[in-house]
Amino acid sequence: MDTVRIIELKESILEDNDQDAQVLREELKKGGTCLLNLMSGPGSGKTSTLLALAPYLSAQMRWAVMEADIDSDVDAKTMLQAGIPSVQLHTGGMCHLDADMTRQGIRSLGEAHYDLIVLENIGNLVCPAEFDTGAAINMTILSVPEGDDKPVKYPLMYEQCDVLVINKIDTLPVFDFDRDRVETVARMRNPDVRIFYISAKTGEGVEELAVYLADRVRTWNKGSN
Amino acid sequence: MDTVRIIELKESILEDNDQDAQVLREELKKGGTCLLNLMSGPGSGKTSTLLALAPYLSAQMRWAVMEADIDSDVDAKTMLQAGIPSVQLHTGGMCHLDADMTRQGIRSLGEAHYDLIVLENIGNLVCPAEFDTGAAINMTILSVPEGDDKPVKYPLMYEQCDVLVINKIDTLPVFDFDRDRVETVARMRNPDVRIFYISAKTGEGVEELAVYLADRVRTWNKGSN
Repeated sequence: MDTVRIIELKESILEDNDQDAQVLREELKKGGTCLLNLMSGPGSGKTSTLLALAPYLSAQMRWAVMEADIDSDVDAKTMLQAGIPSVQLHTGGMCHLDADMTRQGIRSLGEAHYDLIVLENIGNLVCPAEFDTGAAINMTILSVPEGDDKPVKYPLMYEQCDVLVINKIDTLPVFDFDRDRVETVARMRNPDVRIFYISAKTGEGVEELAVYLADRVRTWNKGSN
Repeated sequence: MDTVRIIELKESILEDNDQDAQVLREELKKGGTCLLNLMSGPGSGKTSTLLALAPYLSAQMRWAVMEADIDSDVDAKTMLQAGIPSVQLHTGGMCHLDADMTRQGIRSLGEAHYDLIVLENIGNLVCPAEFDTGAAINMTILSVPEGDDKPVKYPLMYEQCDVLVINKIDTLPVFDFDRDRVETVARMRNPDVRIFYISAKTGEGVEELAVYLADRVRTWNKGSN
């Protein structure tokens, strides 16, 4: 197995992140790369969802993962062990990534071309939502054990996400979790949000999500999104 | 039931939060009030743990809860319904509370004397750990479904917490969760951390935690902590 490469991100000096994110998005589009910004609270299953998606995605496209974390390299290690090109990005204590930090990560992936680059953002439902990373797809995971009140409590995250993945549905019998409540408030935050129910553990629902994402990636990279 | 009072916190103008937090801690000690800063990621069960502790705490002391959130008033409503004095603090999008914001919350509780005031901080494992709120006790909840790697990934949170509550232990059979891994890394972050295993849902372990907290409160308020 390759050794995990750890990239220490530098704090951005750019003042207008929204503008910078737009520039990055256009650069990526021109290069035929779709950037997916994956967000959630801690322990919702970002890494395990990527692992579950891997067989489907790898069959259809070249893709890589940037694992952002305050510290540790456990997630990049996990992805590498699964044979997926990945780097570990360290934010030096910062609670989010902006477009410039994302660009530093993308550069660290090297010269190879990827159809899809996934940024696994810091596990945090507050700050990452405030910074446009330049992503074409903003995907948020909510796991059943976290509870059905998260779209009520973290409005900006649910306004920003255009794909909502409800994970750990194998634990629905164990928790009080009202799907209608989640869907109603999530659609109030973003009427166009696409919602998927999966269990990264059992694999339920994962193929449907993979098919949708692969289609989004193809459409984006064709320039007809 | 009383109506939920919502306090919109103003951003602090003080530059030295550590100093301000120390001042607040001393003021509270002088007044015989113990402040408990309750932190966790989203959905770990902060509110339900407080509800489970309530019968034990209410029998022994006067206590109140400040529910901090970006938005919504669901948590303060829940506490009021359970007969516990509480206010809802809104941070206006901010991801943490500092000592001055905490002081604004305490003032909003009015003139009544409380032996214990709980600050239920924003659901976030990153930013709240960076700001001393003036609390005498920093308590962090980790729920089993979040996974046993959280002390590895969120080092500062686990350095700051002196009471670690592992919640939702009724779901241990459903998740891969290595207690030894959590305890080892948590004690590496803070060798003096006290660790409790509870299920706020079934009540398991809650009395032991309540006895410990009541003792901490009494000791603090006697001035002999």
